[in-house]
Amino acid sequence: EAQVLYDFTAEPGNNELTVKEGETLTITNQHIGGGWIEAQNSRGEIGLVPEDYIEVIPNPNVGNVASPDLSFFDAYAPASAPGQNQASNGNDPWSVWNADPSGGSNNNWASNPEGTQTGKTAPDPWSSVSQGHPQAYQGPGAEDDEWDDEWDDMKSTGGYAESESGDGGGIQRGGAHATSMKISLNKFPGFSKSGPELYLLCKQLTKGKDKLPIYIGEVGPVWFYPETQLDCVVADPKKGSKMYGLKSYIEYQITPSTTNRPVNHRYKHFDWLYERLLDKFGSAIPIPSLPDKQVTGRFEEEFIKMRMERLQGWMSRMCRHPVVSSSEVFQLFLTYKDEKEWKMGKRKAEKDETVGVMIFSTIEPEAPDIDLIEVDQKCEQFSRFTKAMDDGVKEILTVGHEHWKRCTGPLPKEYQRIGKAFQNLSSVFNSSGYQGESTLTDAMTAAGKTYEEIAQMFAEQPKKDLHFLMETNNEYKGLLGCFPDTIGVHKAAIDKVKEGDKLVATSKITPHEKVTMAKRVSVMSYALQAEMNHFHSNRIYDYNRVMQLYLEEQVKFYETIAAKLRQAHGQFTTM
Amino acid sequence: EAQVLYDFTAEPGNNELTVKEGETLTITNQHIGGGWIEAQNSRGEIGLVPEDYIEVIPNPNVGNVASPDLSFFDAYAPASAPGQNQASNGNDPWSVWNADPSGGSNNNWASNPEGTQTGKTAPDPWSSVSQGHPQAYQGPGAEDDEWDDEWDDMKSTGGYAESESGDGGGIQRGGAHATSMKISLNKFPGFSKSGPELYLLCKQLTKGKDKLPIYIGEVGPVWFYPETQLDCVVADPKKGSKMYGLKSYIEYQITPSTTNRPVNHRYKHFDWLYERLLDKFGSAIPIPSLPDKQVTGRFEEEFIKMRMERLQGWMSRMCRHPVVSSSEVFQLFLTYKDEKEWKMGKRKAEKDETVGVMIFSTIEPEAPDIDLIEVDQKCEQFSRFTKAMDDGVKEILTVGHEHWKRCTGPLPKEYQRIGKAFQNLSSVFNSSGYQGESTLTDAMTAAGKTYEEIAQMFAEQPKKDLHFLMETNNEYKGLLGCFPDTIGVHKAAIDKVKEGDKLVATSKITPHEKVTMAKRVSVMSYALQAEMNHFHSNRIYDYNRVMQLYLEEQVKFYETIAAKLRQAHGQFTTM
Repeated sequence: EAQVLYDFTAEPGNNELTVKEGETLTITNQHIGGGWIEAQNSRGEIGLVPEDYIEVIPNPNVGNVASPDLSFFDAYAPASAPGQNQASNGNDPWSVWNADPSGGSNNNWASNPEGTQTGKTAPDPWSSVSQGHPQAYQGPGAEDDEWDDEWDDMKSTGGYAESESGDGGGIQRGGAHATSMKISLNKFPGFSKSGPELYLLCKQLTKGKDKLPIYIGEVGPVWFYPETQLDCVVADPKKGSKMYGLKSYIEYQITPSTTNRPVNHRYKHFDWLYERLLDKFGSAIPIPSLPDKQVTGRFEEEFIKMRMERLQGWMSRMCRHPVVSSSEVFQLFLTYKDEKEWKMGKRKAEKDETVGVMIFSTIEPEAPDIDLIEVDQKCEQFSRFTKAMDDGVKEILTVGHEHWKRCTGPLPKEYQRIGKAFQNLSSVFNSSGYQGESTLTDAMTAAGKTYEEIAQMFAEQPKKDLHFLMETNNEYKGLLGCFPDTIGVHKAAIDKVKEGDKLVATSKITPHEKVTMAKRVSVMSYALQAEMNHFHSNRIYDYNRVMQLYLEEQVKFYETIAAKLRQAHGQFTTM
Repeated sequence: EAQVLYDFTAEPGNNELTVKEGETLTITNQHIGGGWIEAQNSRGEIGLVPEDYIEVIPNPNVGNVASPDLSFFDAYAPASAPGQNQASNGNDPWSVWNADPSGGSNNNWASNPEGTQTGKTAPDPWSSVSQGHPQAYQGPGAEDDEWDDEWDDMKSTGGYAESESGDGGGIQRGGAHATSMKISLNKFPGFSKSGPELYLLCKQLTKGKDKLPIYIGEVGPVWFYPETQLDCVVADPKKGSKMYGLKSYIEYQITPSTTNRPVNHRYKHFDWLYERLLDKFGSAIPIPSLPDKQVTGRFEEEFIKMRMERLQGWMSRMCRHPVVSSSEVFQLFLTYKDEKEWKMGKRKAEKDETVGVMIFSTIEPEAPDIDLIEVDQKCEQFSRFTKAMDDGVKEILTVGHEHWKRCTGPLPKEYQRIGKAFQNLSSVFNSSGYQGESTLTDAMTAAGKTYEEIAQMFAEQPKKDLHFLMETNNEYKGLLGCFPDTIGVHKAAIDKVKEGDKLVATSKITPHEKVTMAKRVSVMSYALQAEMNHFHSNRIYDYNRVMQLYLEEQVKFYETIAAKLRQAHGQFTTM
């Protein structure tokens, strides 16, 4: 009834079935949901197979009457081939977590010698990009192109020609932008001015209102924090259209806590903001990527809701950052009054020259210089920590992903079977013809129904607790993925300063320039320390909050089960 | 590192690994327990494989020093080949449930046209007899032969030559014994006196003290119930030995509630009692088999404990039966004063001629005769009910068995991994060097440990609740397995009475005998109804009790988890 399109190796413990390309399967249950179907192979083994990996062979006896020609619709929604792709990955918003977007700027551990890209080796139909089979993952995410791909107004401003939003875009662009540093720094050819020395050796530092002070707080160097923390609400997604309705897009309403006046932005505007922040602050401050375009959802609404939730998370994190939130470009995004102000602000931001490593020229620590050894040690420590945390976060994501699958797959099925078994025995008892049977059979039926309710609870629980644990860790995975780039800038600068004597000896720099470089690498270290302290403080808050929420919901979950079972228990009587 | 001895097909959802005979595996974890090991095949897939299905290839580098010659011990305990069989089925006392002992008298649904033998088709390494590979299931059960095989005193009394206890024994014996009826009745050749007509046409009925009255109670025909119900305690198993210590056996102490004076019996004595009860009452009262000899346990103590628990269950059920418990042979077993009384009583019981269908000659219903149509309807109803209940009970056993495996296998592993992931992240956090870290890390470590505790709880819970649900259903499965034989006697009798006119016409019987037969089949029907009412009343009590116990422990379980998580939750603080 179905043909296997790609090899798929079952993961143990998930009711999955290993299949080979070209194999013919019999579909035993098409209504599993979550992008899975249950199928039987020729050896009689039954298990779950990802829908995307198989192609249903049309039953010639049913034929054309039952399956109308949908090719017209397909042209607009290529993912909607009946019963196959529409539901792919629907239930599992974590699908993209196990896949590192190729070339994405937030997965740079590979450029770190000790780094490993992913913790997971088994093929996972839920992980999107890395699978490489064409039908998969063309859910609502694919339609995105229709909503966000018209960069015409962008193109007119120059500098973004052909560049789509997000992944990989940074590499195509020239200049001293953050995402391209990885390339220019790793293979430092001699002593060009393309790396951190652009700042280390520059003649004139920025003056005046753009200064970013660093203070020494209780925990060490800290950014300047405004008295009231900025926040914003991303809400009310609306579908708009242009080109006489041929192209549609989603517009979100963003309301900052300062003005309380909503502004509208499309995903591509967020993406524009991300690029500006990355360019400007990326050397000093890890700027997490926007939620992936590949975020999937079974239905358009689900997709929009998920993307909005993640845009909200991203915006909140940016609002919480004192440097980012007070920057001109960020304020423009949140508070522009009209189209004209927006367009002018955009043009100005794109012409900003204090980008890349030059951001350090605006930083002014109110503290004495640190010597190179300490700078080096701090940098190493942060590098170790962020790498270790990246591993820890990925472990939680992997385990959580497994747990999600079990809670929504085999567990509810098992509790349902227990419930059915009790109810079946109860109905047998009911047929005994013996009097005084009903107390027992009523109680057993109730107990059976309780286990069916528990099955349902298990299936729905992850959305109530695991979801947030996963979202938070996913956010941190994204954030941690930016550190290798940021730390890389620092390491390159430290290496350069270490070469100081040699550079003086070979007359590449003057002795005065050597002193300046040492001072400036100290400034960079203060910036990194302030950023790490900001990161730690947020991390402690975030993990406290998400663990509280998780455990609170878990407690409720188990208490509800206990209460339901207690009620079921009360119906039994021993005479 | 290990060679596969038999094909094994993984059951979906249990982390199992499909392996083929001759395949070579790498053992990745030998300490899974419960008769399983974790192994990896050549394709890199990892999963659980039953220990009995593989043979560890000795590492030539380690060689003889590490593995002493155990062949001497093997002669006495063939199952104890190091690291292989000793642990087989250890954790799963339900192993024998999915296997119908071949030829066992308690699995006669096959002789019932609609009957199906087992509900399970997937190969199950936990099911014993049906697997047919030699090493498996020779745990302590095999040593049983040493404890119980000396039937010398039995042989001297004649009639039991070469017959071992239990399964299949009944078929070898001659006479009108219950278990042999199946054979003689199903292919009724003409009109011999080997079937129910032995009673239907017998000249003289038993008189006097042996009469078994039937009264009409609220629920219909009922046996005579004594005022105080007999009960007994099976306890204190002691190892004895004979033949200068070469043979050993286990003796149990049985204390009846009437005399409160303990008597000692070995398994073979229980088996003798079972045979007597089956011979005497089996046509009217289903006599459940003794706990299987195949009951397994990882250690001798575990095995003995399990057997004792089941002997207790069997004895309690017999004590609760008004007819069985008041019988001379049962009283002898419980209250014999010395060896002499025991031996004399045994001889008398073995000479009892009121056995097989003749038991009906002792039954005296205090109610008017029932006509054949009603007799037939009642019999059909009981047949349908017991068959349906047998299916229901087997469904619970199958589902419960799956649940047991999940609760002791993949679930604890998953919760442990969650716990470890939290603790790992916590220790990463601890390395941050940021001050004020410890509140969060202490809380996360505690949360991680809590999930490890929950893992442990999951693994241990089945012993506290599912065990009893399984034991009760297993007991009922055994009991229900006796009904086809018992009901078969009634059906044969009914068929015979239906033939009455024809038999008179062909002068096989007299018109008077035809009337007698009708009266006697009415007596049989009263006996069956009384027995069914006894069964129903016990069933309602038993299922109420076991469901109460199960749900009570389940409530405790989930409440304990909730309490633990609540405590873990309390350690987190949002600033």
